[in-house]
Amino acid sequence: MADTRQDDVATAMREHVLLPAQEMARLGTATQPVLTHAEGIYVHAADGRRLIDGPAGMWCAQVGYGRKEIVDAIAHQAMALPYASPWYMATSPAARLAEKIATLTPGDLNRVFFTTGGSTAVDSALRFSEFYNNVLGRPEKKRIIVRFDGYHGSTALTAACTGRTGNWPNFDIRQDRISFLSSPNPRHAGNRTQEAFLDDLVKEFEDRIADLGPETIAAFLAEPILASGGVIIPPKGYHARFKEVCERHDILYISDEVVTGFGRCGEWFASEKVFGVVPDIITFAKGVTSGYVPLGGLAISDKVMARISGENAKGSWFTNGYTYTNHPVSCAAALANIELMEREGVVEHAREISGYFADALASLLDLPGVADTRAVGLVGCVQCLLDPTRADGNDDDKAFTRKIDERCFELGLIVRPLGDLCVISPPLIITRAQIDDIVAILRQAISEVGAAHGLTSKEAAVG
Amino acid sequence: MADTRQDDVATAMREHVLLPAQEMARLGTATQPVLTHAEGIYVHAADGRRLIDGPAGMWCAQVGYGRKEIVDAIAHQAMALPYASPWYMATSPAARLAEKIATLTPGDLNRVFFTTGGSTAVDSALRFSEFYNNVLGRPEKKRIIVRFDGYHGSTALTAACTGRTGNWPNFDIRQDRISFLSSPNPRHAGNRTQEAFLDDLVKEFEDRIADLGPETIAAFLAEPILASGGVIIPPKGYHARFKEVCERHDILYISDEVVTGFGRCGEWFASEKVFGVVPDIITFAKGVTSGYVPLGGLAISDKVMARISGENAKGSWFTNGYTYTNHPVSCAAALANIELMEREGVVEHAREISGYFADALASLLDLPGVADTRAVGLVGCVQCLLDPTRADGNDDDKAFTRKIDERCFELGLIVRPLGDLCVISPPLIITRAQIDDIVAILRQAISEVGAAHGLTSKEAAVG
Repeated sequence: MADTRQDDVATAMREHVLLPAQEMARLGTATQPVLTHAEGIYVHAADGRRLIDGPAGMWCAQVGYGRKEIVDAIAHQAMALPYASPWYMATSPAARLAEKIATLTPGDLNRVFFTTGGSTAVDSALRFSEFYNNVLGRPEKKRIIVRFDGYHGSTALTAACTGRTGNWPNFDIRQDRISFLSSPNPRHAGNRTQEAFLDDLVKEFEDRIADLGPETIAAFLAEPILASGGVIIPPKGYHARFKEVCERHDILYISDEVVTGFGRCGEWFASEKVFGVVPDIITFAKGVTSGYVPLGGLAISDKVMARISGENAKGSWFTNGYTYTNHPVSCAAALANIELMEREGVVEHAREISGYFADALASLLDLPGVADTRAVGLVGCVQCLLDPTRADGNDDDKAFTRKIDERCFELGLIVRPLGDLCVISPPLIITRAQIDDIVAILRQAISEVGAAHGLTSKEAAVG
Repeated sequence: MADTRQDDVATAMREHVLLPAQEMARLGTATQPVLTHAEGIYVHAADGRRLIDGPAGMWCAQVGYGRKEIVDAIAHQAMALPYASPWYMATSPAARLAEKIATLTPGDLNRVFFTTGGSTAVDSALRFSEFYNNVLGRPEKKRIIVRFDGYHGSTALTAACTGRTGNWPNFDIRQDRISFLSSPNPRHAGNRTQEAFLDDLVKEFEDRIADLGPETIAAFLAEPILASGGVIIPPKGYHARFKEVCERHDILYISDEVVTGFGRCGEWFASEKVFGVVPDIITFAKGVTSGYVPLGGLAISDKVMARISGENAKGSWFTNGYTYTNHPVSCAAALANIELMEREGVVEHAREISGYFADALASLLDLPGVADTRAVGLVGCVQCLLDPTRADGNDDDKAFTRKIDERCFELGLIVRPLGDLCVISPPLIITRAQIDDIVAILRQAISEVGAAHGLTSKEAAVG
């Protein structure tokens, strides 16, 4: 019965669905595992297997699965008023959620625009920065500064801001207004200290501004940690230094918190409390609803809004918006999710357990093949390199990591294989015992796959 | 009680929400009506008023409000498995929905990619056409041909394809790859016959292709009827003629059915059955879930897919996708919506009642101030011009129409005021008696506002 269902679903997927990151040569032949149900941090596959959801869906299932409070809120709103046009009508869920998010964001980020997800949140933030400078009478101030290894979405514009160059082939990434800085990957410091590495990163930013002219630069767009680009945690002080440079040149600092927002780093938003920066705009998605329904958005500072509203803005219309902007069901789901997180202290829990999580991942460093582990809050990774002295993995390392991922899956753990990284960003409700389970599976998988690659001890691997 | 709630919600909206089409000078002061609940074709405002939902939300509430079957399906899926990463995992709702949509689309459009709404559907369709030509080794074949008055979305790319020029100010509409043709508005024929007007439109298209070079043109992107641009129904035969030109030059025909799909024109999709064209790609959103939760997508023909898959496509990855691609709850809502539409014969009903709807709108033509009425299926409009001999309304006509809209609201009908048009695209479940109600309110409002403008009879207005 389960198998029949799996076969039917897998067949329909193969025949009728185009997947994200579809390898075209395998269209119609590649098969994904079929998931049927889930509860807590566990998902169940159609073949009867129960798996720990290591990546929390796609960095989004903050409160885990089967949370009746969220489902009830969704059902109640969908029954009462599933839709209202955001162009013409107000509804309570959008109003309440915007009000709530304003209390959770740092500084004076009190004005919220809702979209359908992370890509549209960033797309709208960038369109807003364009609008902002046009209304201010600075039509030349339009360039966007981003970083290699950054990930910002999959619309044409946000994909063009994405510095994961592996996503570029066969797309025409239009970069006439977009300028890339180096990845702030601490492993790229080489023989520099982290402080010297940071100084060089700041200097590169200042030099770029001088080269391009500050009057041509609208925004610096950055994730607090470069998540999909490889769980890269910039050197300490990076964000505050970059913000100071932005302020000096009247450049908007847009913090892309699609991954880090809503507790992932142990705070509602990571920008200020974890990384010491109050941005001008924060984008969010994913954790805002714990993934139960699509929603994204951005919060903008009052100071920024004040410059382009009121008397100065006669005749200026922000003609940007989606059918599903302010969607009542999405906003109701987010409100219930936030209320649940508050009631259960989910963000505090994530903060409290983050040290345990980091230590647990670090305990794997004795294994040959483990080059690095890193974590902030409940996002972390294990970097797997056949030669741990390399800064970045090559194709052999990626194949090695894929095998580890496959073995973890057999052992009951979903790992998101991201190049040479085993990324672990579990639901925030995870317990210490469940973290132990994850690390035990990782240890077994890395040991077995390492042994198959002839890695017998840390020293042997290095040698 | 109701008023308190309205005040609270309105205050939170004013203070914390940035609206689509926000007039910046009125940020923090403008107030929208607050909706609280809805059933069938009616929505209820916080002040106790019951209104007919003339625009069906935003052309999306096909089956109306309070449909328990859809709510139950949403709740069931959200409880069982609210999320799964589309990069790694298959789920039944996405598989079943893609399979179902493949049966509803014309021709061999059997491969579906899911997104979060209409804008991301069109953005992904355009990114697909870019990918397609790169994989085919035709890197120069990238231009997109669109029309003035077309509307295709609000991402940076789809906004740039939108020919509603009123949306352009204060945004930098990047048109280096986008080329605009004339609006196929029959009222622009002037003293030409409709046949001669169509010949000229086709000639313009062919001349444009010759000018730019067919080897530089990837796609023709067109709504079957230009909905947000003014419910413009092109001359009979337009789509088939344009498709024939596309085929001759290996240009993809992308039919943007975000508005027209899922029964709006009396067929599941309008392209083939209403307008005689089998496109290469169809984009959809809105009606696919009746607006209950966000979802969009595109269906691509097998013939197109075959050219870029299999052996020819080794090493080509379609690196486009969203966290909420294949969203289980969105797809489950769509399946329940389609099942409900099939069980109740909603599309057949829309088709059967469409003549009655068109006649009812046309009955208003005796009123001074009514210049035109038009309808296809259950999308229609009443064009209100102080001087009905004008092809398009001027600012006075738009102010006149806004007043009609305001009066309709007082009388219990939401009209989407779109320039000089009263747009009516009600839930598809509407009855003849309810259509009569709509038209009675329109008649009263137009008569009263017309009289206030000194229009006393059709002849007086023309004279």
